[in-house]
Amino acid sequence: MSHKWLIENGAFLVLDHTCPIINGYMLIEDDLIKYVGEIRPQVEEGIQIMDGSGLLFMPGLINTHGHSPMSLLRGLSDDVTLQVWLQQKIWPMEAKFSEQEISAGAALSILEMIKGGTTTFLDMYIYMDEVARLVEQAGIRAVLTRGVLGMCSEQEQLDKLAGAVSFAKEWNHAADGRITTMLSPHSPYTCPPALIHKFVEAAHDLDVSLHTHMSETRLEVEQCIKDYGVTPAQHLQQLGFFSRPALVAHGVHVNSEEIQLLAAHKVSVAHNPGSNLKLASGIAPVVQLLEAGVNVSLGTDSAASNNNLDMFEEMNLAALIHKGVSGDPTAVPAIEAIKMGTEYGAKALGLSHIGSLSAGKKADFIALSLQQAHFVPKSDLLSHLIYSAGAQDVEHVWVNGVQVVRHKECLTMDEEKICYEAEAALQRIS
Amino acid sequence: MSHKWLIENGAFLVLDHTCPIINGYMLIEDDLIKYVGEIRPQVEEGIQIMDGSGLLFMPGLINTHGHSPMSLLRGLSDDVTLQVWLQQKIWPMEAKFSEQEISAGAALSILEMIKGGTTTFLDMYIYMDEVARLVEQAGIRAVLTRGVLGMCSEQEQLDKLAGAVSFAKEWNHAADGRITTMLSPHSPYTCPPALIHKFVEAAHDLDVSLHTHMSETRLEVEQCIKDYGVTPAQHLQQLGFFSRPALVAHGVHVNSEEIQLLAAHKVSVAHNPGSNLKLASGIAPVVQLLEAGVNVSLGTDSAASNNNLDMFEEMNLAALIHKGVSGDPTAVPAIEAIKMGTEYGAKALGLSHIGSLSAGKKADFIALSLQQAHFVPKSDLLSHLIYSAGAQDVEHVWVNGVQVVRHKECLTMDEEKICYEAEAALQRIS
Repeated sequence: MSHKWLIENGAFLVLDHTCPIINGYMLIEDDLIKYVGEIRPQVEEGIQIMDGSGLLFMPGLINTHGHSPMSLLRGLSDDVTLQVWLQQKIWPMEAKFSEQEISAGAALSILEMIKGGTTTFLDMYIYMDEVARLVEQAGIRAVLTRGVLGMCSEQEQLDKLAGAVSFAKEWNHAADGRITTMLSPHSPYTCPPALIHKFVEAAHDLDVSLHTHMSETRLEVEQCIKDYGVTPAQHLQQLGFFSRPALVAHGVHVNSEEIQLLAAHKVSVAHNPGSNLKLASGIAPVVQLLEAGVNVSLGTDSAASNNNLDMFEEMNLAALIHKGVSGDPTAVPAIEAIKMGTEYGAKALGLSHIGSLSAGKKADFIALSLQQAHFVPKSDLLSHLIYSAGAQDVEHVWVNGVQVVRHKECLTMDEEKICYEAEAALQRIS
Repeated sequence: MSHKWLIENGAFLVLDHTCPIINGYMLIEDDLIKYVGEIRPQVEEGIQIMDGSGLLFMPGLINTHGHSPMSLLRGLSDDVTLQVWLQQKIWPMEAKFSEQEISAGAALSILEMIKGGTTTFLDMYIYMDEVARLVEQAGIRAVLTRGVLGMCSEQEQLDKLAGAVSFAKEWNHAADGRITTMLSPHSPYTCPPALIHKFVEAAHDLDVSLHTHMSETRLEVEQCIKDYGVTPAQHLQQLGFFSRPALVAHGVHVNSEEIQLLAAHKVSVAHNPGSNLKLASGIAPVVQLLEAGVNVSLGTDSAASNNNLDMFEEMNLAALIHKGVSGDPTAVPAIEAIKMGTEYGAKALGLSHIGSLSAGKKADFIALSLQQAHFVPKSDLLSHLIYSAGAQDVEHVWVNGVQVVRHKECLTMDEEKICYEAEAALQRIS
């Protein structure tokens, strides 16, 4: 028997340009939104009713780039150059990760994301089975992909590719469809062209999308031009990467020709403003990307370079920094920033059934309590979401129609145990 | 009889460069911190003890630039040019402000700040008596100053100056010393030189510091050079402004000569990263200012251009944007950002008795609960404060030894009433 319930008297972020927020009703049946509107829908007597007064309902946030196990390394190293950060701090610690540490770090990330209103996240890491099992239990939605570093023998490369393919096959559409998978050569600077090409072929075989890091730092762009005579976007295009639906993370150092190329091939870019600023990688040309018609979504990257997984902060940064850098206060307005965190995120992940509050979409949504000083006066709730809100304003979270956070408490994960185990895991390898 | 109490088993942010955070004890007597250290101090039997386990204690944050009544205009207008924002939106609304609206807006700001861990704020606005009364009641610490716009007749200018002087006299050292005052010509572009000079004289007479807006936008700098043949910093210096302890807000467009001039005259700069980004004013050369030895503090500016009053967000932005813009990941490290929000803020306001957790300072401090996913693992709590925390992590707040927030609840202000009255005030003038 299906379960139908109605939210009444709530404010709903519908993102219509003329009226982005409406006061009204939302009807949910099982895992689907059946209706959102200002007029009360006709419903059966005795249907379960939730009073939405004082709450703002919006689509769950979509984090399109991250590495969940790395939350274990949060705050381990800051304020140093990328080389020192990676080579002296992050890589030596990651080398000590066993399945237990992966699990502890990923659980910590999922807990933080789910409580902070992220209902879908993309995760790229080495050992992904444990992450997939955690996603299954936590009730969150995820796009999972094993990232492959190709700086090893050809045989090892092939083994890793086989592992990535087998993971992508096994878990695609698992957990009631909450899990989908992608294939991910780590980046053009860590994978030889032949390996990237094999990934493209495998993606065609499996009918999955491709993900990779591209043009995060100036150095890697220079290296690509030196090694292959072309920019990273051109390089990937030549390898057929864009013949599949593709999502590239960062895109900080892309020129106007590359922007046109990304637009022409409908490649999405996961913008990670917090991580890019913190690692001093630079500021992606988001205004130019959007103008060219590129789909730009948002990501936190890992908590080792962010150092939290608060998607409200990324939306806020996306709305702020491009104004400050361009000198144009109309750059990335609030409605664009919120779409980057929701609708455009869904598009980047190829998930057409999430990303907005509208009939027919999966019931992935969150509610924020409006009874707080920083949301008063309620002149423009959309503005408040981008310029004033934070992860900790999230009161309730539903994924696939199931409530996973109630009054800031995660119903599917043991917060105390997860925090304890993360501390213990770090202790073990320190 | 004096009231002494001890916090034990807490983590304390002492900002020693070798060991910024210690685990230990803090002894408070009335309005003063008597001891902070790792060794338990000898105390009388029966003394009140607070268990600080799981809490991080730090100095209260110091917001060195704002306009509290303007919170009433939060979200009224975003994503537009400064001219449209001011002339079509903000000024027409402010023209309708009566004492009731001032009071409603200021109360809302103070509530938001106090709950978010700000224990001292500088406020510059037109009618300040009501703000002063609210500060008295709320138990927060404040530096209050009537800002004077000089685009009016000479007689009106003199009347306004007289009002500012009379306010500064009446309220300086009021509310058990929690209120101090300054004098503030609004800016070089809104005040004729003669008026600014009179402010300087009055500041000498009253022995108070001076505050003003300086070089927020490129346009005002160009106008200053056109009108007076010198940059704003040179202009203010020629008018004697820096013969008093002075704090200038913004300093976005200052050249290297001006930076040297500010350093030579020990002028403090209130950096408002959120507001400067949102209004697309630009990015202040904070790295260069700090290198030159200028004292740089932080401010939120008003909630009409921020749009919240979260000082954690300003510290985060200060630590992030200068890395991203300079390409140097070591720019504004966490310890510098936290000092900008505390110690340097105290210096900017001329309040040597606040700004750090150390014996002899006023007991203005806050406590954050560490039992949260985004603070795990506890590898580096200083890093977490800058790169992961937000206003809503604040659990307890004390000002002048008196607890004003307990478990996120403000003990001195009626939150529901304040939010209601702010909505009503905006309705009245809309």
